[in-house]
Amino acid sequence: MNVELNDQVGFLIELDKLKGVYRRSPLMDGSRYENTAEHSWHVAVCATVFARYATSDVDISRVVRMLLVHDIVEIDAGDTFAYDATGRIDQFDREQLASERIFGLLPADQGKELASLWAEFDALETPDSRFANAVDRFLPVLHNYHNQGHSWKKHGVSRAQVDGRVACIEAAAPSLWPYVAALLDDAVRRGYLAP
Amino acid sequence: MNVELNDQVGFLIELDKLKGVYRRSPLMDGSRYENTAEHSWHVAVCATVFARYATSDVDISRVVRMLLVHDIVEIDAGDTFAYDATGRIDQFDREQLASERIFGLLPADQGKELASLWAEFDALETPDSRFANAVDRFLPVLHNYHNQGHSWKKHGVSRAQVDGRVACIEAAAPSLWPYVAALLDDAVRRGYLAP
Repeated sequence: MNVELNDQVGFLIELDKLKGVYRRSPLMDGSRYENTAEHSWHVAVCATVFARYATSDVDISRVVRMLLVHDIVEIDAGDTFAYDATGRIDQFDREQLASERIFGLLPADQGKELASLWAEFDALETPDSRFANAVDRFLPVLHNYHNQGHSWKKHGVSRAQVDGRVACIEAAAPSLWPYVAALLDDAVRRGYLAP
Repeated sequence: MNVELNDQVGFLIELDKLKGVYRRSPLMDGSRYENTAEHSWHVAVCATVFARYATSDVDISRVVRMLLVHDIVEIDAGDTFAYDATGRIDQFDREQLASERIFGLLPADQGKELASLWAEFDALETPDSRFANAVDRFLPVLHNYHNQGHSWKKHGVSRAQVDGRVACIEAAAPSLWPYVAALLDDAVRRGYLAP
């Protein structure tokens, strides 16, 4: 009986629940809401594709690993909408507890490693986590643009709010910024996003 | 206008369709079928967690990248059930065309790199692809076991068929093998899998 493997399998079984955590944004074809597991895949591929826009101090393999685990806490804490001021008040505490429980299912060394990767993503203080956050904020803009601003309109989100949210893209991946700014300009022009 | 970035964004938009490709296996809670995007996330995390069971010639970062793209061809080619002998006859040709079209959306150097990563996965000839395939075959066993053999029973799959499919686990990650073998023994005992 391999206790370590048993714990890892317990963690992998638990992860299946992330496929049932739904975000506020529909798929680009509008057919249904996106779940956090498939979002995590999409951002991980996005980081790979955008690797050439990262500054030289970024380790893309670490960024990918970080993005694969960055939302696992949502199994317990749920998806907190980026523009939900109330939900964001206790978001850190809820996610901290979730991190302890879920990564705690793993063998201690591995649980500690993944929990610290999540905490690093969340703190936005290292080059890797800044680039990971930039990618994680790029894709929702693309989604919202391509589903005609569904969740922006539904929740009355303004351009200024999105600007605040995506500022880290300009800092961590400056070559992506003109594209994002143009997309947001056009979203306002088309009425997807309040000016 | 950044043509390269524009092509990359076109690729990322195309990827959203993988969230609408459904596999034959339900989620572990049985609530619905699993899609290929969320499956790709799950196997990528699984490779990270199981890194310690890989032989020393395996580069886990490459394995993760490989698993992130290994099923993208299903956007065009659909999910071919592992035990569908008819579907597997032209699987290679269908997936080859899909690879050319979908990875061809990217800037040439990047498209070539990801297409060759997919081809390497498929050929099962390198240590990285052998380990990636082992992980990709481990998780469905876990899924099938935890949903009471749903797709095994539905498609009349036998233990011998599964044994053929998972043999690469024993070769590429021998420390996982006793666990898999015990799970399959128990699945037969419980009637989830035909002897």
